[in-house]
Amino acid sequence: MRTIKLIIEYEGTRYAGWQVQPNGLSVQEVVEEALERLLRERVRVFSSGRTDAGVHARGMAAAFQTEKTIPLSAFSDGLNTLLPQDIAVRDASEAPFGFSPRGDAKGKHYRYTILNSSRRSPLSRLYVWRIGHQLDLKAMDLASRHFVGEKDFSAFRASNCSAKTTMRRVDSLDMTRDGDLIVIDVRGSGFLKNMVRIIVGTLVSVGRGRISPDDIPVIFASGDRRMAGSTAPPQGLCLMEVFY
Amino acid sequence: MRTIKLIIEYEGTRYAGWQVQPNGLSVQEVVEEALERLLRERVRVFSSGRTDAGVHARGMAAAFQTEKTIPLSAFSDGLNTLLPQDIAVRDASEAPFGFSPRGDAKGKHYRYTILNSSRRSPLSRLYVWRIGHQLDLKAMDLASRHFVGEKDFSAFRASNCSAKTTMRRVDSLDMTRDGDLIVIDVRGSGFLKNMVRIIVGTLVSVGRGRISPDDIPVIFASGDRRMAGSTAPPQGLCLMEVFY
Repeated sequence: MRTIKLIIEYEGTRYAGWQVQPNGLSVQEVVEEALERLLRERVRVFSSGRTDAGVHARGMAAAFQTEKTIPLSAFSDGLNTLLPQDIAVRDASEAPFGFSPRGDAKGKHYRYTILNSSRRSPLSRLYVWRIGHQLDLKAMDLASRHFVGEKDFSAFRASNCSAKTTMRRVDSLDMTRDGDLIVIDVRGSGFLKNMVRIIVGTLVSVGRGRISPDDIPVIFASGDRRMAGSTAPPQGLCLMEVFY
Repeated sequence: MRTIKLIIEYEGTRYAGWQVQPNGLSVQEVVEEALERLLRERVRVFSSGRTDAGVHARGMAAAFQTEKTIPLSAFSDGLNTLLPQDIAVRDASEAPFGFSPRGDAKGKHYRYTILNSSRRSPLSRLYVWRIGHQLDLKAMDLASRHFVGEKDFSAFRASNCSAKTTMRRVDSLDMTRDGDLIVIDVRGSGFLKNMVRIIVGTLVSVGRGRISPDDIPVIFASGDRRMAGSTAPPQGLCLMEVFY
């Protein structure tokens, strides 16, 4: 039995997220169907985690098992001819038997992009959260430091998040300005449901002066989702890489 | 009578180009219809030039005349509420009477983006020409220098181009590599039909070893379109700015 690891890039715009959903098309389902056409057998594709509806990925990690002996390139170049234009395999490799994309992941890198501009941008609209109000980057930068470290992120997860433990380690949170774009790179051991989007929503509340940087430790201590900022919209988020 | 100058950004994917066409929707037509709804009068919008079907713009310059006294912001923020998501006004200003977006243009900046990768990229597919074959950037850079200056670009225009004179001045042609992206910035006084796309197609032929950098002066001298490379596809091209 072979275990094949895939690195998958997708534009999430028209998908209901990674995971198979009762309503709406999922990336997982499209990949599994393409694999079924390729292998002439039904396989289950496991991923490093879900992404929400509308979230993009440059490097989603996934894996499946098969006994077919077709060459590895069939799972990259071959599979790409069967996938739609908004999904592609960037790399396929043999993984050790028992490899678990979720269980073996050491960390993840997410990127969130804000367009801080009073005008719409047709060319970046599918990949950014546009905020017309001029954001206070200095305050956001001060606030961002409070998210780094091993912490209880109870206040920064979706209210319906079912994770058993809410301790997570954020290794770095870097904000860079590039013209009217603000790029927020978050790297960490793992993330709760909507965690990156709620962190970004909270940073934006700080940038708008609604929350002070000094409030962040208070919000952490409260464990209360309602004290944090809103959940940033999905199209600004991209899963860049999963580390093993 | 007021002359209003607009700077317009659009994603060209679903348009048959800037100019009104018998078949297919044009950007011009959509902008004129939005203006008609705003002004309750039909106006003709003149631009600095056409863009081909599928070509994008970050800074198309255009202008129209009206006697209506509504404030300038109506032509930016107001018009943007009437335009589809893939077209937006970035700036509106009063121009002197008689201003001609085409006749008064001093120059233009076009950017062409190549993705030099053996794999498809869902997240950049709408904005790049993907070339799987590894390109020889050094040869392309040598070749690129032959395009700078005031020259007869007869060999580098569409065979159905109807311009009276084929002399054009290219002020600069810069190639920069950013990971597997190759960004080609071309600035010049004006451009013949398909000129940037044929220059890029020719540079790619050089990068693939089909044309030598030393052949470029020979192709110029021939004035023969068939000696140059193919016309690069439209989605990699973007009109960045028009200079006045």
